Amino acid sequence: MKCSICKGAAGIRLPHFNLKLCNDHFIQLIHQRIERAIKKFRMFRKGDRILVAISGGKDSVSMWHALRRLGYEPDALFVKMGEVESIERAGEVVEKNVRLTGGRLWIEDGTRYFGGALPSEVARRLRRPVCAVCGLIRRYAINRFAVEHGYDVVATGHNMTDEAAALLGNLLHWNEGYLERQWPLLPKMEGGFAARAKPLALNYEEDIRLYAQILGIEYLDESCPFGLDATSRIYKRVLLELEREQPGVIAAFYMGYLRRSGVKQLSVVLTPCQRCGTPTTGDICAFCRVVERYEQLTRKVSLQSMGRGNMEENLKASQEAKLDSHERGSHERGNNQ
Amino acid sequence: MKCSICKGAAGIRLPHFNLKLCNDHFIQLIHQRIERAIKKFRMFRKGDRILVAISGGKDSVSMWHALRRLGYEPDALFVKMGEVESIERAGEVVEKNVRLTGGRLWIEDGTRYFGGALPSEVARRLRRPVCAVCGLIRRYAINRFAVEHGYDVVATGHNMTDEAAALLGNLLHWNEGYLERQWPLLPKMEGGFAARAKPLALNYEEDIRLYAQILGIEYLDESCPFGLDATSRIYKRVLLELEREQPGVIAAFYMGYLRRSGVKQLSVVLTPCQRCGTPTTGDICAFCRVVERYEQLTRKVSLQSMGRGNMEENLKASQEAKLDSHERGSHERGNNQ
Repeated sequence: MKCSICKGAAGIRLPHFNLKLCNDHFIQLIHQRIERAIKKFRMFRKGDRILVAISGGKDSVSMWHALRRLGYEPDALFVKMGEVESIERAGEVVEKNVRLTGGRLWIEDGTRYFGGALPSEVARRLRRPVCAVCGLIRRYAINRFAVEHGYDVVATGHNMTDEAAALLGNLLHWNEGYLERQWPLLPKMEGGFAARAKPLALNYEEDIRLYAQILGIEYLDESCPFGLDATSRIYKRVLLELEREQPGVIAAFYMGYLRRSGVKQLSVVLTPCQRCGTPTTGDICAFCRVVERYEQLTRKVSLQSMGRGNMEENLKASQEAKLDSHERGSHERGNNQ
Repeated sequence: MKCSICKGAAGIRLPHFNLKLCNDHFIQLIHQRIERAIKKFRMFRKGDRILVAISGGKDSVSMWHALRRLGYEPDALFVKMGEVESIERAGEVVEKNVRLTGGRLWIEDGTRYFGGALPSEVARRLRRPVCAVCGLIRRYAINRFAVEHGYDVVATGHNMTDEAAALLGNLLHWNEGYLERQWPLLPKMEGGFAARAKPLALNYEEDIRLYAQILGIEYLDESCPFGLDATSRIYKRVLLELEREQPGVIAAFYMGYLRRSGVKQLSVVLTPCQRCGTPTTGDICAFCRVVERYEQLTRKVSLQSMGRGNMEENLKASQEAKLDSHERGSHERGNNQ
């Protein structure tokens, strides 16, 4: 098998691009596609203050290495969700990688907004999916950190397969609001929103995994300890099935969406949240509403356990929680990254 | 299990509608959804001259029975594709069903445009997928028959699952032209296009199968002898997988498309085909181009077999056929029903 570019021995077959490549030209291809995403969507420039949201997984760690090889100088932020064993391991992996390449590693405690409670505990009490709660906390913590520390942009490790899966979910349920917000760059908003960029948006997930393997990049290959988001996993599985039968369909699907969408301006009017100042469409932002509800429910539980609660209160709280989760159902089905 | 409507014993569970039903109320539901499609998309009215394109399969046969039970008075057209055993069996099943309910059965010979050749032979010579060729012949033959015999509308048995699968394929490849033409009613066009309607478009495929079983409707449960369209089968398989995990997702997807599309007017300019008079975007319609090409290739083959062909001619013909199939590739990937 010969490399489609240099005609040397090729070890890598990429049916989705109809290419065979040697290791060097494969690495070059991944870098080119990252650079193309950064330039095409005007994500950031050399010299900008970039914060990589790093989890220890293949995507964010590979992106960290690629950005530094390409001459950008990002820092990294690791959001720690409690003293769970696999999170400790992820933290160690992240630390090693950052030490290898230079750059600063920040560590944030994601549980501090809920008095130290893990996302699984918060989710159980709110009767909402763990992934939705964990995602909300992470996005909030990362954005707040970036704004407070003066970063121009937050880079996340979403790859093209992730994005296509989210797109499929949003199309199946016609979540038009989310379709808009799925663009590879969400611009900065005055008042408290850092720009969010997805530099891996033009690379297949399996290519990112291969990139890490070829360069011997260490990453944590474990599922999230709080359980993966079952919904987006289904869409990804289905897309990979289609990809096996029609190599390139994921790229055709996602690139077609990009071509047809054009750069979107978010059309909603935002005002500062009355509690935390983050721009929001209502009076209080989604995150602060969750914090408030959690505090209410926690108070009710402790009243009960002190023997002062009664059946009626108990029932009312559970009904409210149900109603609340029902109202939000349609939002959670969409994948809001 | 109790019927969600009459509270009597229910034998049928419909997770996609979150309903349990007794047989009577299930039949009523299917009829209601057929009536709703007919009215919502203004397909036809009582007294209109309706032609059901009947194949012997569960969808077209069930539709035949439902329309007659609902007080419409359609006739049926069976397009016979050669003297193949399973087609003979389908013809017998169709005849029995029409005899049961009244109405007229027409039989058309779909092979007459190609000198008696079966779709598989035509497809092999043209180097195009059998399903694409067979679909083209059927659509052409049915439309021509309807126009020549003064029918107001042709009703086809496409169900919601078929339509959602086609929609998924068209979205994955962003075939916007086909997205427009997927509407449940294509209006009549002066000059030679009969209106085309899909009265089963609001019913799940599995519900139509159940409808036939409950009413003891006889149909042919066999695959098409010319091989099923592999591409649309993949999309259907994937959607059914999603449906198992998210009951109702097919309906949400398809109904969302209908809500967002509005009634489409086809924006293309059509003129009569110079050969057959059917409205077309070019000088000669797609069907007549295929006939012409087939005749050319057939002439070349018979010249060769008479010993007067030479290598050069042979090569040229095969190259032309290849080019031709390549050009049309993008069309065939879309599901043009």
